[in-house]
Amino acid sequence: MSTQTITHAGAPSTAWSARPDAPLTDETLDVVDGWWRAANYLSVGQIYLLANPLLREPLHRDHVKPRLLGHWGTTPGLNFVYAHLNRAIRERSQPTLYVTGPGHGGPGLVANAYLDGTYSEVYTDITQDTEGLRRLFRQFSFPGGIPSHVAPETPGSIHEGGELGYALSHAYGAAFDNPDLLVAAVVGDGEAETGPLATSWHSNKFVDARQDGVVLPILHLNGYKIANPTVLARIPESELLDLMRGYGHKPHVFTGGFDDEDPAAFHRRFAELLDVVLDEIADIKARAAAGDDSRPTWPMIVLRTPKGWTCPPVIDGKQVEDSWRSHQVPLSSARDTEEHLEVLEEWLRSYRADDLFDDDGRLVERLQVLAPDGHLRMSDNPHANGGLLLRDLRLPDFRDFAVDVPVPGGSISEATRVLGQWLAEVVRLNPDNFRIFGPDETASNRLQAVYETTDKQWNAELVPADADNHLARVGRVMEVLSEHQCQGWLEGYLLTGRHGLFNCYEAFIHIIDSMFNQHAKWLKVTDEIPWRRPIASLNYLLSSHVWRQDHNGFSHQDPGFIDHVVNKKAEVVRVYLPPDANTLLSTYDHCLRSRQYVNVVVSGKQPAPNFLTMEEAIAHCSRGLGIWEWAGNERDGEDPDVVLGCAGDVPTLETLAAADLLRRHLPELSVRVVNVVDLMRLQDVKEHPHGLSDRDFDTLFTKDRPVIFAYHGYPWLIHRLTYRRTGHPNIHVRGYKEEGTTTTPFDMVMLNDLDRFHLVMDVIDRVPSLGSKAARLRQQMQDARHEAREYTREHGEDIPSVRDWVWPDAGETATEVGGPERDATTSTGGDNE
Amino acid sequence: MSTQTITHAGAPSTAWSARPDAPLTDETLDVVDGWWRAANYLSVGQIYLLANPLLREPLHRDHVKPRLLGHWGTTPGLNFVYAHLNRAIRERSQPTLYVTGPGHGGPGLVANAYLDGTYSEVYTDITQDTEGLRRLFRQFSFPGGIPSHVAPETPGSIHEGGELGYALSHAYGAAFDNPDLLVAAVVGDGEAETGPLATSWHSNKFVDARQDGVVLPILHLNGYKIANPTVLARIPESELLDLMRGYGHKPHVFTGGFDDEDPAAFHRRFAELLDVVLDEIADIKARAAAGDDSRPTWPMIVLRTPKGWTCPPVIDGKQVEDSWRSHQVPLSSARDTEEHLEVLEEWLRSYRADDLFDDDGRLVERLQVLAPDGHLRMSDNPHANGGLLLRDLRLPDFRDFAVDVPVPGGSISEATRVLGQWLAEVVRLNPDNFRIFGPDETASNRLQAVYETTDKQWNAELVPADADNHLARVGRVMEVLSEHQCQGWLEGYLLTGRHGLFNCYEAFIHIIDSMFNQHAKWLKVTDEIPWRRPIASLNYLLSSHVWRQDHNGFSHQDPGFIDHVVNKKAEVVRVYLPPDANTLLSTYDHCLRSRQYVNVVVSGKQPAPNFLTMEEAIAHCSRGLGIWEWAGNERDGEDPDVVLGCAGDVPTLETLAAADLLRRHLPELSVRVVNVVDLMRLQDVKEHPHGLSDRDFDTLFTKDRPVIFAYHGYPWLIHRLTYRRTGHPNIHVRGYKEEGTTTTPFDMVMLNDLDRFHLVMDVIDRVPSLGSKAARLRQQMQDARHEAREYTREHGEDIPSVRDWVWPDAGETATEVGGPERDATTSTGGDNE
Repeated sequence: MSTQTITHAGAPSTAWSARPDAPLTDETLDVVDGWWRAANYLSVGQIYLLANPLLREPLHRDHVKPRLLGHWGTTPGLNFVYAHLNRAIRERSQPTLYVTGPGHGGPGLVANAYLDGTYSEVYTDITQDTEGLRRLFRQFSFPGGIPSHVAPETPGSIHEGGELGYALSHAYGAAFDNPDLLVAAVVGDGEAETGPLATSWHSNKFVDARQDGVVLPILHLNGYKIANPTVLARIPESELLDLMRGYGHKPHVFTGGFDDEDPAAFHRRFAELLDVVLDEIADIKARAAAGDDSRPTWPMIVLRTPKGWTCPPVIDGKQVEDSWRSHQVPLSSARDTEEHLEVLEEWLRSYRADDLFDDDGRLVERLQVLAPDGHLRMSDNPHANGGLLLRDLRLPDFRDFAVDVPVPGGSISEATRVLGQWLAEVVRLNPDNFRIFGPDETASNRLQAVYETTDKQWNAELVPADADNHLARVGRVMEVLSEHQCQGWLEGYLLTGRHGLFNCYEAFIHIIDSMFNQHAKWLKVTDEIPWRRPIASLNYLLSSHVWRQDHNGFSHQDPGFIDHVVNKKAEVVRVYLPPDANTLLSTYDHCLRSRQYVNVVVSGKQPAPNFLTMEEAIAHCSRGLGIWEWAGNERDGEDPDVVLGCAGDVPTLETLAAADLLRRHLPELSVRVVNVVDLMRLQDVKEHPHGLSDRDFDTLFTKDRPVIFAYHGYPWLIHRLTYRRTGHPNIHVRGYKEEGTTTTPFDMVMLNDLDRFHLVMDVIDRVPSLGSKAARLRQQMQDARHEAREYTREHGEDIPSVRDWVWPDAGETATEVGGPERDATTSTGGDNE
Repeated sequence: MSTQTITHAGAPSTAWSARPDAPLTDETLDVVDGWWRAANYLSVGQIYLLANPLLREPLHRDHVKPRLLGHWGTTPGLNFVYAHLNRAIRERSQPTLYVTGPGHGGPGLVANAYLDGTYSEVYTDITQDTEGLRRLFRQFSFPGGIPSHVAPETPGSIHEGGELGYALSHAYGAAFDNPDLLVAAVVGDGEAETGPLATSWHSNKFVDARQDGVVLPILHLNGYKIANPTVLARIPESELLDLMRGYGHKPHVFTGGFDDEDPAAFHRRFAELLDVVLDEIADIKARAAAGDDSRPTWPMIVLRTPKGWTCPPVIDGKQVEDSWRSHQVPLSSARDTEEHLEVLEEWLRSYRADDLFDDDGRLVERLQVLAPDGHLRMSDNPHANGGLLLRDLRLPDFRDFAVDVPVPGGSISEATRVLGQWLAEVVRLNPDNFRIFGPDETASNRLQAVYETTDKQWNAELVPADADNHLARVGRVMEVLSEHQCQGWLEGYLLTGRHGLFNCYEAFIHIIDSMFNQHAKWLKVTDEIPWRRPIASLNYLLSSHVWRQDHNGFSHQDPGFIDHVVNKKAEVVRVYLPPDANTLLSTYDHCLRSRQYVNVVVSGKQPAPNFLTMEEAIAHCSRGLGIWEWAGNERDGEDPDVVLGCAGDVPTLETLAAADLLRRHLPELSVRVVNVVDLMRLQDVKEHPHGLSDRDFDTLFTKDRPVIFAYHGYPWLIHRLTYRRTGHPNIHVRGYKEEGTTTTPFDMVMLNDLDRFHLVMDVIDRVPSLGSKAARLRQQMQDARHEAREYTREHGEDIPSVRDWVWPDAGETATEVGGPERDATTSTGGDNE
């Protein structure tokens, strides 16, 4: 990437302009054809050739790679669109980002970036000459080389495309708040069968024609997947067009390559169609600029071409072009026989490379002119290297939003509601580069204070009653009942240099497990690519968590996303479990300042005690874990008899209640309470950058005293994180055990043996020789559990002695702070879904 | 559930018949209205009332539950459809299954099952009288009671509906191979925004009008989600109808409840519409029976009603009916003021319960007649309790498909290809209750032998070239490029009493992580419900696994599904890593015989050595793990110096190669090789039913010798499973570390330090006092790795000494068995996607 100062591509003066009033000449179309042939040639070359890149000598089997690892099928279609977009971009100076759904088309995107010149700017050893071509070919899908997909290594890419389904979500994410940007998104007809892609067409109800950019979907019907035809290629065209209209688009159909139509003719047809489409978009933009805020019918293109277009139609008597057989490497046995080698050579020579590259192996000047200038090249669009455009958020001082905590447990808040008040101010200060995404749960997760400074963006129909529901044509909150869309939009938004967060019910974040995987892998790889600049972290806020599914039950209980996340590279994942409102504020401020991470923050939304003042919260969060001295009763200079560890808001509450019981009933027992906010602190420093040294770990948890650890999620994770610690054999973890569900909070923790009474029993079972007093207390705890359980079955709510318990320092006077306002008519928006 | 013999509902004589030639009378419609009011009354009662179920005394606050936990919004619409279907079922004797997408409508489905009589048959304490009503109300969403959703506890349910998106996939899964079954599937307009639901409309291209049942989608547009309008309710109706037509349906629109239309009138309109729809379906069925195999345009219904229909329109000045405010519990403060209590009482009395229930609290006879007979009741449809209908598979003897293994490593096979030959016979023997599901990967995963006995079912357009692609109107293989659809169809198929497997690339099975969660939870709960009969296990075959993504790279590498799975209840999950072809056969035979589990089987598809004869494989698999004596060189009666553990095919190969190196270079070192097929054997027997006792574990792995464990997936999982074992501190695990990717197999294992050379180095590092010979060997291994790495960068393939290594007993003569046939034209269908 050149180091020159980035100028924002697409100043308003050039975007959405009409093409110059000049005829579309045959010469221009011939240049487009030349570019297409060059891109196709380079694509085939990357898949097959080790040497002899321009076939300046006869093809020999030693010129062919011994293992052919790549995909041809989708590539010529992608190259076709790229070449034509170049022509249109040159004529209109239209900043354009190219999202290629079928990531298999990697060689094509690399080829175009090379033809653009960007590739050689970024990778200076891949020069614009014959030796550069040889290296370009050799490195592709080769040990020590580059991947076969449209990977982070590919200039111009924000979308690897290996896991299918997210092309349109990413494209829309890129378009939000980029009013001058065109995002051309090729959707493969294989990808179109996935669920996430199928719903992402509806993104057009969430984009504003004035404030946001434009996504141009290009549905590439090449008819086949790996081994099957595609559904959308095998329904009547009238049905397909109904579908596209039903998605709210105006479809334009182009079919080419199935007969012997002259290239000049089909290039002309497609170029004219593209001009019509771009003119329609320009008209919509103009109408929007003039104040029309109705949802426009955006155009889209159905592009029907043969799969593997331009490869040998038939090999060994079997159809390859226009067949699933061209999906991967047609002619996989190119080196095996002279006959196959000849087929390959003939195929390569069909592109007439000598017309395309000069004696030095450089693209001929006649074709070079098709590349747009500078950042108008799609491979050099700065939005595709979002860190270049990233601006720090203006963050209000989170201390100003602190809740008052006169003594530990001395006030009560809904933590996420407090966070929402700070987020409202974040939104106000960052009106064009911060968005909040959620699947219809932002209010349910208690972030509704944000509606004091913004609205939910909604470009479908509005009715008068929507006025009190915070819906508007533009807004910072994006709500759609699809976790896939929320994640995909946010990823696209972040990858193009903006900030955001995704709030979600904890259980259902698993819906995007695999999308998280792909994003984490992207971050891991980009960390190692010098020209890729750091982007803002992907921030999750998981609320409505496993312990408070009173309404919804077992299907809504799953704390395993944390387990899923920690399998990814330690360098890119962070997990936080703030125990109260002030720690949540401090944690989230940290997350919104960070780069290149995935931050998972789990926090309850129900009224719960606050334990730390803001100063204490900041200190605690910056350590990530620590001893809560006020909660224990250690004797100076001695290790305690037992350590109570806790991570998560509900486990922390139960741990403190257990500590209270122990102090009252076994005052001679020396107890330490350790709270963990930053879960990765439990790991060894060799495993995770946040990890604790063994010495520090031993200092906190001791080497030999029993540790009763109350954890938010599946208990095994704590063992996994600590199995190398000296004291690990003494760590006993309580957590969620998939024991099913019940409908009161305390019944729920009892069901999983995470309740205060059971924790006390755990202590008694593990501290030797506590004597008969402890045995009696154990029986008391057993009885108290029984009584609590029976009470719920009789009354339908938790026993008051538990429900109303407060930390003893707080007296009887814990008051609610942080502003819950309740709506008498309904619990919706105030409780779980 | 009554214990009478189940007769297959829907003998051909009754299914798809026209309604009797009699007018639809006002009396009948009045009965429908009465049923609807009764169901609505019982729904409201469940949400609110603890006592006084029929309001035979004035409502007092003590009659109202202290915590109101449920959802009203979707319920009246579900009840409306249920009542009308009852009428149609009675008239046509049409076996019908009701799938309710919005699982929040739990109280409605419980209410209808109670009115049907089924509920009292299954739960005998919930009697058909006032006391039974009181219990019915009290138990709902109450500690010790029943969940709020359409959970497994609900008779007639195969679909909990808590995680949205799978209603249609489940419905189609139920319909496959049930030619006489109508599946009425209500799709909520919230759910309709999810990706999985959006693509599942296309299921109609995979259903055969003659062989399969019929899904009638009912898109319930009640307009609102938790806190927002829904997208499909806010696009022009013409666009919505285009969308439904684009999905291949003929839409019928019903709108009711928005004005003061008389109930008799709207009931008549809906009943007539339902008759038209059912007649259209009957016509299609008749045409199909007569031989028409073109894809029909199935009807569907758009049902537009107010959300919360029939609840108080306005409470405290705020709109509730026809608003998101009715989503959950309208009037959540019913107990707080006299005024609110009056609103609730008035609402309850609006259903005129005294007309609906007699003095004893029993549904009046006039309404009872609306319930269809016996299994025609939707709540008693035996398909909804699939274990009742489950027949054992006829399984061919897998021993007959064994590959020949003259000596360990003496032959080479592609394991999944061998499995495919057995599966082909499974398919042949079970032509109507076994299906194979996969996202376009069945051939890529090397199961293509199944196409010798069946085809891929494909009801979209066919072209002549499809003949050699095994596409047909009916077939046992279901391929669509949507893991969500594959999983949803299979779940529906299993839940209705059939068998199947899902083959998938290992990395992308994460796409259905959350669907797996829900199914595992369903199994866990049904294990505890006496009347629910066991169903066939959900079997995964994960191939194209993490170690062989030569083509595809980093995005296609993720072995973490195993980690995800083992968080669920031990009683329902099983994980197998067969190391070769015969063990895979034996494992899969076991899986297809099992019940109520999720079986995860991971197996490679690339040519790899076979180690065990079939007799050995059977013995090994039945133990689940064991010492491979032929691979080690222990001395009798002594613990070995080191244990090499391995799980997974590639790690097993590397472990054996390491054992070979150690025997050759350090013959004095005593080595034991332990292979693990059944991963759950590593756990303690207290944690998992397959777990080993500590004594057995210690016998295999020793208490104090170093264990170098080569594992298929993320290494931490082995620690998680073994952290309680005596010898755990000595266990050192090598596995996948997210180190990125490369394009040759050996380069890939080297990248993650799982290669033979590194394993030898690990041994040397952990066995003390091996002396200078070992130190020299360590250096040799270091050099060998370096040489192997450099070789790939030079040649693009693995160094022959590694690539061609065979276990020494095999000599030089390992031959390929199990029939790979290669296609010279293409590597597609033979390699990775």
